[in-house]
Amino acid sequence: MLNREAVRRILKSALREDLGPGDITTESILTGEELGRAQAVAKGEMIVAGLPVFGEAFGLLDEKINIAEFCKDGDRLRPQYILAECRGRLGAILSAERVALNLLQRLSGIATLTGRFVEATAGTGVRILDTRKTIPGLRILDKYAVRVGGGFNHRFGLADGILIKENHIAAAGGIAQAITRVRRSAHHLLKIEIETANLTEVKEALAAGADVIMLDNMSLAEMKEAVALVAGRVPLEASGNVTLANVRRIAECGVDMISVGALTHSAPAADISLLVTTG
Amino acid sequence: MLNREAVRRILKSALREDLGPGDITTESILTGEELGRAQAVAKGEMIVAGLPVFGEAFGLLDEKINIAEFCKDGDRLRPQYILAECRGRLGAILSAERVALNLLQRLSGIATLTGRFVEATAGTGVRILDTRKTIPGLRILDKYAVRVGGGFNHRFGLADGILIKENHIAAAGGIAQAITRVRRSAHHLLKIEIETANLTEVKEALAAGADVIMLDNMSLAEMKEAVALVAGRVPLEASGNVTLANVRRIAECGVDMISVGALTHSAPAADISLLVTTG
Amino acid sequence: MLNREAVRRILKSALREDLGPGDITTESILTGEELGRAQAVAKGEMIVAGLPVFGEAFGLLDEKINIAEFCKDGDRLRPQYILAECRGRLGAILSAERVALNLLQRLSGIATLTGRFVEATAGTGVRILDTRKTIPGLRILDKYAVRVGGGFNHRFGLADGILIKENHIAAAGGIAQAITRVRRSAHHLLKIEIETANLTEVKEALAAGADVIMLDNMSLAEMKEAVALVAGRVPLEASGNVTLANVRRIAECGVDMISVGALTHSAPAADISLLVTTG
Amino acid sequence: MLNREAVRRILKSALREDLGPGDITTESILTGEELGRAQAVAKGEMIVAGLPVFGEAFGLLDEKINIAEFCKDGDRLRPQYILAECRGRLGAILSAERVALNLLQRLSGIATLTGRFVEATAGTGVRILDTRKTIPGLRILDKYAVRVGGGFNHRFGLADGILIKENHIAAAGGIAQAITRVRRSAHHLLKIEIETANLTEVKEALAAGADVIMLDNMSLAEMKEAVALVAGRVPLEASGNVTLANVRRIAECGVDMISVGALTHSAPAADISLLVTTG
Amino acid sequence: MLNREAVRRILKSALREDLGPGDITTESILTGEELGRAQAVAKGEMIVAGLPVFGEAFGLLDEKINIAEFCKDGDRLRPQYILAECRGRLGAILSAERVALNLLQRLSGIATLTGRFVEATAGTGVRILDTRKTIPGLRILDKYAVRVGGGFNHRFGLADGILIKENHIAAAGGIAQAITRVRRSAHHLLKIEIETANLTEVKEALAAGADVIMLDNMSLAEMKEAVALVAGRVPLEASGNVTLANVRRIAECGVDMISVGALTHSAPAADISLLVTTG
Amino acid sequence: MLNREAVRRILKSALREDLGPGDITTESILTGEELGRAQAVAKGEMIVAGLPVFGEAFGLLDEKINIAEFCKDGDRLRPQYILAECRGRLGAILSAERVALNLLQRLSGIATLTGRFVEATAGTGVRILDTRKTIPGLRILDKYAVRVGGGFNHRFGLADGILIKENHIAAAGGIAQAITRVRRSAHHLLKIEIETANLTEVKEALAAGADVIMLDNMSLAEMKEAVALVAGRVPLEASGNVTLANVRRIAECGVDMISVGALTHSAPAADISLLVTTG
Repeated sequence: MLNREAVRRILKSALREDLGPGDITTESILTGEELGRAQAVAKGEMIVAGLPVFGEAFGLLDEKINIAEFCKDGDRLRPQYILAECRGRLGAILSAERVALNLLQRLSGIATLTGRFVEATAGTGVRILDTRKTIPGLRILDKYAVRVGGGFNHRFGLADGILIKENHIAAAGGIAQAITRVRRSAHHLLKIEIETANLTEVKEALAAGADVIMLDNMSLAEMKEAVALVAGRVPLEASGNVTLANVRRIAECGVDMISVGALTHSAPAADISLLVTTG
Repeated sequence: MLNREAVRRILKSALREDLGPGDITTESILTGEELGRAQAVAKGEMIVAGLPVFGEAFGLLDEKINIAEFCKDGDRLRPQYILAECRGRLGAILSAERVALNLLQRLSGIATLTGRFVEATAGTGVRILDTRKTIPGLRILDKYAVRVGGGFNHRFGLADGILIKENHIAAAGGIAQAITRVRRSAHHLLKIEIETANLTEVKEALAAGADVIMLDNMSLAEMKEAVALVAGRVPLEASGNVTLANVRRIAECGVDMISVGALTHSAPAADISLLVTTG
Repeated sequence: MLNREAVRRILKSALREDLGPGDITTESILTGEELGRAQAVAKGEMIVAGLPVFGEAFGLLDEKINIAEFCKDGDRLRPQYILAECRGRLGAILSAERVALNLLQRLSGIATLTGRFVEATAGTGVRILDTRKTIPGLRILDKYAVRVGGGFNHRFGLADGILIKENHIAAAGGIAQAITRVRRSAHHLLKIEIETANLTEVKEALAAGADVIMLDNMSLAEMKEAVALVAGRVPLEASGNVTLANVRRIAECGVDMISVGALTHSAPAADISLLVTTG
Repeated sequence: MLNREAVRRILKSALREDLGPGDITTESILTGEELGRAQAVAKGEMIVAGLPVFGEAFGLLDEKINIAEFCKDGDRLRPQYILAECRGRLGAILSAERVALNLLQRLSGIATLTGRFVEATAGTGVRILDTRKTIPGLRILDKYAVRVGGGFNHRFGLADGILIKENHIAAAGGIAQAITRVRRSAHHLLKIEIETANLTEVKEALAAGADVIMLDNMSLAEMKEAVALVAGRVPLEASGNVTLANVRRIAECGVDMISVGALTHSAPAADISLLVTTG
Repeated sequence: MLNREAVRRILKSALREDLGPGDITTESILTGEELGRAQAVAKGEMIVAGLPVFGEAFGLLDEKINIAEFCKDGDRLRPQYILAECRGRLGAILSAERVALNLLQRLSGIATLTGRFVEATAGTGVRILDTRKTIPGLRILDKYAVRVGGGFNHRFGLADGILIKENHIAAAGGIAQAITRVRRSAHHLLKIEIETANLTEVKEALAAGADVIMLDNMSLAEMKEAVALVAGRVPLEASGNVTLANVRRIAECGVDMISVGALTHSAPAADISLLVTTG
Repeated sequence: MLNREAVRRILKSALREDLGPGDITTESILTGEELGRAQAVAKGEMIVAGLPVFGEAFGLLDEKINIAEFCKDGDRLRPQYILAECRGRLGAILSAERVALNLLQRLSGIATLTGRFVEATAGTGVRILDTRKTIPGLRILDKYAVRVGGGFNHRFGLADGILIKENHIAAAGGIAQAITRVRRSAHHLLKIEIETANLTEVKEALAAGADVIMLDNMSLAEMKEAVALVAGRVPLEASGNVTLANVRRIAECGVDMISVGALTHSAPAADISLLVTTG
């Protein structure tokens, strides 16, 4: 589910950015009365994500525009599939087109890339996670697209999950001290994850009562040892330099989750065209 | 040049998104007095872009943080190059880290990809242009990164440039009518660009007095013919499905500009790490 | 066309300014159930501008208020003409009245003054232009009113048009250098206008390839010489100390456009009354 | 005194409006390092108002710009007087110039016009008042300029003063009932002013205990009678169609205050130039 | 009457605060299609205030939620009384519940406490007033609740009423000087209240022409003397350390108004439960 | 630690609310040059909270105001203790006084009440928790004050903790189903708390793998049984109708945490005066 109010805030600011004082081409040429129809067409294979955002973009410029959706978020589409059609005032369609497409293409791009990571690890039981490496201002959408693609979210931000990193440990004077300080201070509904760089740290984290352990940038061999060592007592998250080429081997080490920054920081936009016709 | 006020608006909202009610891990563990140092290190080859944004992110959380930059936007860096170092309150460094890196990586990713397109067309005299396919809310930064990478900006949005598309022409009843309406209505400092799909339309656009002609999704052969036909009377922009693989051939058709959506909608993030040390 | 979202933003902030924590007179006296009717009446001759803004102001306080418009923006009205009538909750009518009228009077004042400049130059083919001398926050409305009055817009702001002034030229080291720098940096859909103060500068601007030349504060004689000199190669804009008394003589010099700051910085408000009746 | 925070809010939004995504002319031509000097020069006689706003506009673009003021708000200036000079980064001076001047000219225009009404009534003891006929969003500045010009403020908006108009009276069923309702409901620090259209209503208002009586659109004869009738028991405000031509005769009727909408809705901008020099 | 726009602004920001990036419990468990019903039930005696705010909170998350109110603001309720029922999408009901209740309980708490002060002074003719000791951001609601409970508002803030305190007097050099300065500067619809600490100051204030006198922290004996001294010439407001235990004795001193900070700074929330049922 | 940016946002909006278009009393009387000193004095026993907020309020009106703090948040103060002194421009001190005090009194009130609950349960090892029953817009401050008073925070809002309530369970079709859905959907760093109303539900929650169990409105006897039954396997939170009178008995049942809505919805403001002196 997507918070509609948040989506509208993002769209309003995007439309303001693109329209500035006005769409001079459209306003100069159209009388304002022309009607039109726009079909969003997939130009490649993709998992679609962001249809409600796409529709809302047009609705914000003209609430009377009618949107028909021919698929739903999460569907895998083949090239040439018509995702949705909007009918209404041509001027509003032309002025909102770019903002609507930019977001639909980005979100579908993220969902599609996520889907490839999920497929690559099929059968291993591993969860593909996103990270906080999202576009500033769009995190709520970026993370939604990951879920649509079959992935899972990591914490949303710094406030809803505890992840103790190397520098936190150094500042606290050790893993045990860091955990003690967090248990004293953070609320009781948050688990504690600790970032570890080698097996010694994994042992320390386990001993200190970490709820989740992140294996950061470890080799496959180290990850296997870590899995054996932990033996299911806490979930393990693999992290660092994960690609489509190596994700299955990482999954086969037996970790529970693999977080992939590229899902949101490097997903190419899905190729979607808008076919506008007048009348 | 980057509008500092606009950069700060973007950063403030990004920090709010990431921090929410607070960075619980850091606030639980640190006393608030610890000092630290963070070095941004390039992990691959890249053209760096966004250093002022990177520094401002830390400054917004603690104005006393000191930033030393060891290169400047537009520099080509080799792996392991240290871009910048910030020193100051460790808590602020850890809390701002992700936002600072997310933007630096995105902008450097755009500049780096732009640089590859520029290189691929070296000597042809063609200009590599961006499009409006940017991330909502970040256009001012995305387009800055394109310039840093050696590219040129197309219009910023719908208000500062006239681009007459197929549907505008259909609604006006022809290219000549569309141009007439725009000349009557838009201010006198804006040129008129017309999107054309074949040579017939190129001829019409030329006859109707277009200032710039876009060749949209034409074959190399068509583009060459168009160049011959126009013979330098107006500048020509090639557009549609431009990749690193075909950009040079397009340039060699003799067009003046090539616009590339991928620069901003599909640039992978540059790989930059932040090495934080305590004390 | 007026961007409705932008109009609503302006109105919401105006209503907040005027209402503050509440309209104590109206809230103290009315029960909230009373109905009323308000007629906007022209008290002098005018070109009306801003009717959609006027109606929206009432609608923002009570979406059920019904507006009937008896003319449309751009109509020339005689004294006593009833422009529009709104019917609905009396409390909302009384509370929104001042904001609605303030804008209607200002915009009609601008349109009316513009109309007088347009009339004064009738038959000369000259375009009357506005400037950036608008009220902060209201530029989109002020410039709309100029168009309604028969004038044309100059650039909206600093981002959608290039106007090289004396100080830019001094900093660049000459007109040619300034133009070179702009061509290298600004996007390809913007023309370049250069401000000149005498015929020598006009010649330089022409030689340097300016797209438009502004004749700033020149005498009628100088302007005539400039027109002869330029001989239609680029459009000429006259600027500086233009009044109703001298505008025709300026137009008759043969310039293409005359920009008039007074249209927006010194237009007296049109005289419009609101006749409210209860029941 | 002007609320600095409020001034900055107005200026930030004005600069955003004018600059949009950037001042392309200045950014294309200047390197960013050039220094400059700008002198604001009066081109006519005026009462200056808005110097702090003028200075703050430059400061918002570059906090290092230095402002020297050679007069203070309220001073009467002769043509060619240099009001203020700012020195600093030329780019910031050129980009902020228009916003800074627009406000300085408007506020000085209001102060100057106010001063003429004050002079026209010199010796009569009457107070010249403004109205709520101000520019949406600028009321705090417009009303400040009236005070600078020697006038007095009427209520700021609908929340800080009670003014019972004809329609309020009709809805309440009479003047006495209207006053009763307001006394029951509004807080005890607000006086009650009643709008009257003839002597009968003046008598009723007086009998009902109005604190102030407005004589709306009455003839000079009626106003004199009203003054005699009221005999100093409550202050009287004359209102409606007040001009420089008739204001003294109205004052000589013996009223205490005269409110003049034109002060803020029709004041021509004061003529002030900015002389920028490079280096 | 409550300004609906202002209420919606407060609610939107409250919902953003509580929901952050999303209600994870509800979004994880519900499909989004479930319907539900929620009854607000009084758990103690109370004067209800804030029903429109309560309903609007649900409406902001889902405009299709239906609200039935079984009482109106100002009604005295007995325990177990059902105030209102909303029916609609269960997810929206669960997500908005806390914000809706927080405000309804606070406002009913204020109204209830106000009602007790009003009752305690029944028959004395005294008015119970609020102060500016309200919760930042909620003043418009807090003061509404005081009116609902039978109290009266003091000035809303620093802009709509004049209250001269000890330090103002010291700075002016005496009560008479302070009044003179205010009369010269503030608009003519504002009365002047002066804070006094003893009878000498009361006499001075009276002599200087104060419109209202505040007796600040005086003993009952002093207040009686002040009432005798002033003899009805101006209204008197008692202020300072007013409790339910002493308010009647203060009222019986003969003052006209008693202001009570506790109404808004220390009112315990009214006890109201929300009984949600599924289906 | 308090997020300074968030505090400033709250204060700016509070100052705007209180000042509106201006502090007319202060602006009318002071010249703007007067200096003053203000001492905040405790009028009763209290735990102080909010000193940084108090200081920042004055700083926002005049950054040159100097604040000296004579205690720190969390200190227990005796009556007459001087908490802090600010020196600087008298006008700014008088205009910011109410906002500064309102927040200091509220936060100290919350801390003081929290401290009493903490004391009442001293030695039992129980944690006193807050709830989401905070003032809309102030949650970050309200929850800070609870920590200052020795209490602990529950989740901040709906996004950073999972609390499954009766209606969630009903909609899911049972406790086990509800937990399954949440584990599938929410991120892995969040624990799951389940609200139970009787021992049967406690058993179900335990069997279904709840991480934390809330005992909602149970009798002391039931709570003791629940503690015995759970036997330390998961932490238990007591909730519902907790008062200073019964909190120790609840604690002695052996629960781990007791959440108390009254900490934030019904804490009376601490009594703090501001003694302002001129010069």
